[in-house]
Amino acid sequence: MKPKVLIVMGSDSDLPVMEEAGKILKEFKIPYEITIASAHRSPDRTVKITRDAERTGVEVIIAGAGAAAHLAGVMAAHTILPVIGVPIDSSPLKGIDALLSTVQMPPGIPVAAMAIGKAGARNAGILAAQILGLKTPGFQKTLRAHKKKMVEEVLKKAEKVRRK
Amino acid sequence: MKPKVLIVMGSDSDLPVMEEAGKILKEFKIPYEITIASAHRSPDRTVKITRDAERTGVEVIIAGAGAAAHLAGVMAAHTILPVIGVPIDSSPLKGIDALLSTVQMPPGIPVAAMAIGKAGARNAGILAAQILGLKTPGFQKTLRAHKKKMVEEVLKKAEKVRRK
Amino acid sequence: MKPKVLIVMGSDSDLPVMEEAGKILKEFKIPYEITIASAHRSPDRTVKITRDAERTGVEVIIAGAGAAAHLAGVMAAHTILPVIGVPIDSSPLKGIDALLSTVQMPPGIPVAAMAIGKAGARNAGILAAQILGLKTPGFQKTLRAHKKKMVEEVLKKAEKVRRK
Amino acid sequence: MKPKVLIVMGSDSDLPVMEEAGKILKEFKIPYEITIASAHRSPDRTVKITRDAERTGVEVIIAGAGAAAHLAGVMAAHTILPVIGVPIDSSPLKGIDALLSTVQMPPGIPVAAMAIGKAGARNAGILAAQILGLKTPGFQKTLRAHKKKMVEEVLKKAEKVRRK
Amino acid sequence: MKPKVLIVMGSDSDLPVMEEAGKILKEFKIPYEITIASAHRSPDRTVKITRDAERTGVEVIIAGAGAAAHLAGVMAAHTILPVIGVPIDSSPLKGIDALLSTVQMPPGIPVAAMAIGKAGARNAGILAAQILGLKTPGFQKTLRAHKKKMVEEVLKKAEKVRRK
Amino acid sequence: MKPKVLIVMGSDSDLPVMEEAGKILKEFKIPYEITIASAHRSPDRTVKITRDAERTGVEVIIAGAGAAAHLAGVMAAHTILPVIGVPIDSSPLKGIDALLSTVQMPPGIPVAAMAIGKAGARNAGILAAQILGLKTPGFQKTLRAHKKKMVEEVLKKAEKVRRK
Amino acid sequence: MKPKVLIVMGSDSDLPVMEEAGKILKEFKIPYEITIASAHRSPDRTVKITRDAERTGVEVIIAGAGAAAHLAGVMAAHTILPVIGVPIDSSPLKGIDALLSTVQMPPGIPVAAMAIGKAGARNAGILAAQILGLKTPGFQKTLRAHKKKMVEEVLKKAEKVRRK
Amino acid sequence: MKPKVLIVMGSDSDLPVMEEAGKILKEFKIPYEITIASAHRSPDRTVKITRDAERTGVEVIIAGAGAAAHLAGVMAAHTILPVIGVPIDSSPLKGIDALLSTVQMPPGIPVAAMAIGKAGARNAGILAAQILGLKTPGFQKTLRAHKKKMVEEVLKKAEKVRRK
Repeated sequence: MKPKVLIVMGSDSDLPVMEEAGKILKEFKIPYEITIASAHRSPDRTVKITRDAERTGVEVIIAGAGAAAHLAGVMAAHTILPVIGVPIDSSPLKGIDALLSTVQMPPGIPVAAMAIGKAGARNAGILAAQILGLKTPGFQKTLRAHKKKMVEEVLKKAEKVRRK
Repeated sequence: MKPKVLIVMGSDSDLPVMEEAGKILKEFKIPYEITIASAHRSPDRTVKITRDAERTGVEVIIAGAGAAAHLAGVMAAHTILPVIGVPIDSSPLKGIDALLSTVQMPPGIPVAAMAIGKAGARNAGILAAQILGLKTPGFQKTLRAHKKKMVEEVLKKAEKVRRK
Repeated sequence: MKPKVLIVMGSDSDLPVMEEAGKILKEFKIPYEITIASAHRSPDRTVKITRDAERTGVEVIIAGAGAAAHLAGVMAAHTILPVIGVPIDSSPLKGIDALLSTVQMPPGIPVAAMAIGKAGARNAGILAAQILGLKTPGFQKTLRAHKKKMVEEVLKKAEKVRRK
Repeated sequence: MKPKVLIVMGSDSDLPVMEEAGKILKEFKIPYEITIASAHRSPDRTVKITRDAERTGVEVIIAGAGAAAHLAGVMAAHTILPVIGVPIDSSPLKGIDALLSTVQMPPGIPVAAMAIGKAGARNAGILAAQILGLKTPGFQKTLRAHKKKMVEEVLKKAEKVRRK
Repeated sequence: MKPKVLIVMGSDSDLPVMEEAGKILKEFKIPYEITIASAHRSPDRTVKITRDAERTGVEVIIAGAGAAAHLAGVMAAHTILPVIGVPIDSSPLKGIDALLSTVQMPPGIPVAAMAIGKAGARNAGILAAQILGLKTPGFQKTLRAHKKKMVEEVLKKAEKVRRK
Repeated sequence: MKPKVLIVMGSDSDLPVMEEAGKILKEFKIPYEITIASAHRSPDRTVKITRDAERTGVEVIIAGAGAAAHLAGVMAAHTILPVIGVPIDSSPLKGIDALLSTVQMPPGIPVAAMAIGKAGARNAGILAAQILGLKTPGFQKTLRAHKKKMVEEVLKKAEKVRRK
Repeated sequence: MKPKVLIVMGSDSDLPVMEEAGKILKEFKIPYEITIASAHRSPDRTVKITRDAERTGVEVIIAGAGAAAHLAGVMAAHTILPVIGVPIDSSPLKGIDALLSTVQMPPGIPVAAMAIGKAGARNAGILAAQILGLKTPGFQKTLRAHKKKMVEEVLKKAEKVRRK
Repeated sequence: MKPKVLIVMGSDSDLPVMEEAGKILKEFKIPYEITIASAHRSPDRTVKITRDAERTGVEVIIAGAGAAAHLAGVMAAHTILPVIGVPIDSSPLKGIDALLSTVQMPPGIPVAAMAIGKAGARNAGILAAQILGLKTPGFQKTLRAHKKKMVEEVLKKAEKVRRK
């Protein structure tokens, strides 16, 4: 099945973070592709996969990077697809550099910034699902079920704490 | 026409920032509604307008707030629609409080965080357009035209600088 | 005995921090209940336990959460009881995100913010005791004894250091 | 009427901020006293007014200070009354110094920290009212009315925005 | 004369900052060109002028931008010329976002980051001169004269202060 | 011999940091005393040892504390002796809270702030020696010897690196 | 009279801040000299005046600078006199850069850091007086009188607030 | 062969970071020397090796230091050679202190700041190569090959991720 979401990361060391986005997309049965492109070390490839994505029917891009995290911004500059950015805490500054580099985009070119690290990667997957859900009949049921499951998990944990 | 985007802000003092989102939506001819709801001062209203939004066909929510900016997060907790958060620099901390309160969402409930202030509000409108564009035949042309116009503006300004 | 204090946390991983609040309340013989509710994943439950607390005679609420820590703020929005917030350092930003999300409340809805982590959780318990102490005849003696014990512990430690 | 709340600030330049706490207490018809004491320039006075407060029936202390804001902490060290701290943005660091100096109290001596500046001062007054409300029959009605008024103000502002 | 240095900025509002770089280059009689290119709004132009620069004999690039300042990084990705980055304080975060976005480059693609704002722009010009000076016989004398002039200015100001 | 320097710390867990101050004083053969006093948990003791210090001939006070580090400020409020403050990184915020609480003193009551942690504790000892050196004939030779030893250590390490 | 204190600043624009140190020294009748030396623009002069100071009987050095404030550190490297550093908020980062550059000295070379800006400059003067007071018979009375005057000023202001 | 680049670090504990700069220079076959000099502990040596460098034909200086990292700034003050600064995360503040001390140089004396830690050290080496490349016929080929190799490494890693 043709991928609807493209997950890109700046380095293979970002994989343990970014595969959280993949896991939740798999849960939602949304086809995706995951790859590596560095905004700085392989800029032409970054532009190319952005354009290819648009051309081949990808509808949402998720880009994760650390430090001066330019990946999401560079991809957003080259596409009209929604781009979700995941800041990764891979530098000594613990991700505040990646967060500001991702979120403080100038007017004209939005990047949808997520939380730093795994929480952000997982949420990137969910946001992609919410966006795709707008045009997929029946998908809202899946999203509601996911929300309900989270409520149940909270209740189970609350029950465990109560019994202690 | 029924609004496709709901713009909410925590206080009427946020209007000069948040109307940037409205302006760009108007440019894109996307119908929207703009209102005030405080996550803290009027929490029931906040939940109600979130649910009403989903029920009445709104497809994207834009929420702007300052300080401990919970508005976008609270709305995201109550909907499966994509929620875009705009941190506003209305406290002495210049918006870093609003940014962290907006972007550092826990796994399960994404908020698409924008830049602090007017740049972020404008980009929230563009991201909403990109999201809606995925299901609107012909809209991609509009988005591409908008991107092209920005290039032209850069060129004009570069020309002016050159002539100085 | 009916709980006078309700301790709530956003996730079961916050328990090692938040049980510090419970320990000190136990020391003060103040009945309390401890449970889990996420402002984001289980928003309705959060509102419900807030209202139930007020209805069933709880007099102080302690809420601990990490990252974009909205729990205390959401509970404060729904009650007229004093709400004490404990920021937890569970994100890569080491709790500065949770602190700002907890303390920077807009005018109208106060949250009594404590220090980040275990120190804050313990102090939340003591503040709850101080508040309840205002209406409990004889309780001030207990609070003074606790203060005195701390002085003695400092003296003992000073003595140990002196002997080295 | 004997004051129930003592409002203290480190310097007379803090008055425009701290009188926000007084205003809301006046609204709630809670008697209060407002004075100046510097934890650093007049430490003995600070201790004396703290002890006098406890002795003369004050039940809540509100202390506002800027920079290395020690006032609330010093007062909390000398009393078993609840102490509310208001960080003031009077140094070039815009209040982040005052916030951390106020909120990061060590285990044993809580200070209930509010937001930086006027929002925090106003909320300090409301929190004091919530605390005193626990032992004042009928006061909960006043607090609920205040909460309701805030909802109405939001609605009025929303109406204004709608009409634009 | 063919430009040896290319000064680029993200927006025409950055001109008052970036012309500091031009002024000092003029003082050093180093030919330069100044233009506008946005890494986000005109990405293709940014790449094009980077490649053209290399092709037409430019030897040093100076790039100034604010917020999520990617301009220097994007240009560095496309050239083997030294790229000097000037962070500009044009967002509510006062340039700390631009600084981290400029300086925290991943291994492989250096950007020589300067101080935020005008001080940084002026220093970018001097660093460019130092770099070009390495291959220009006699230029070291010019640089030493410039250093000496700064010493003299300090002395003059010291004299003025002494006379007060 | 009567102590010339009093080293105080807020908690026994600060000892591994603060004994660095003691070690260097021992090296300089300056008699000192080391003890524990918490500005918050044992405020009267803190004042008492400050006054006793002045009375018994102590000439410099070194105070180390973490989090909302008020110890040095409180002691400075009660003495006309020079007070040196050492911020300790014992909270999740890694000492930035302790640094700001120590250094941002209001006009009138100085604290000589050192670097966070062991570097700061060691330097506190050296600064105390420099201050005492002003009135101790012959001591300047000791201080110069210490400075010279540091130069030699740098040379030895440089030699080692060269041989690699 | 020969100066006992040398006040140095990096630039003449720092004079309005640094003359606060001079004013208080004048109040204390301590002879001082005030001059300009930039650690970066006039490094040799900086070393020279440091050595001259030591040679001519100066006993305390006060150095104020902004941005990457190296002045105090450089002077401390070249003397065994106590060096007091005043961080100045002259860059867009509002003095946090100057504070960290001044206070985070490596082990071996202490700088006594003061608060950012005028408060710090004034306190530098007082600390210098406290240090010199250790060897000046009768001076402690002056320092105690100064402390007492501050108490009285607080009382006067408190009285004014009471009368409002 | 005579060194073209001088790598200096403030302490031998910085060697694991700074040898990254050496490794890449070795790869580029650029002769370099590596040594230790502390701006604070051995200031005369620091000035001497800076002047010797200029005199003996060194063309680029790389200086790495942590905390109040003055090394690069001090060397820049004494030379007209380009100085590259590498901030090292050796203090509890994780390098933000070293970064600001390195990058926020006043107008007149530039330091080319790199990212914090190993990434920055490696990039310092590459920037030195780019600078030297301007005057070395044929060297641009080497730099382009290095850039190409990085692209290939990204492709290889992308391929590995694809196969998973």
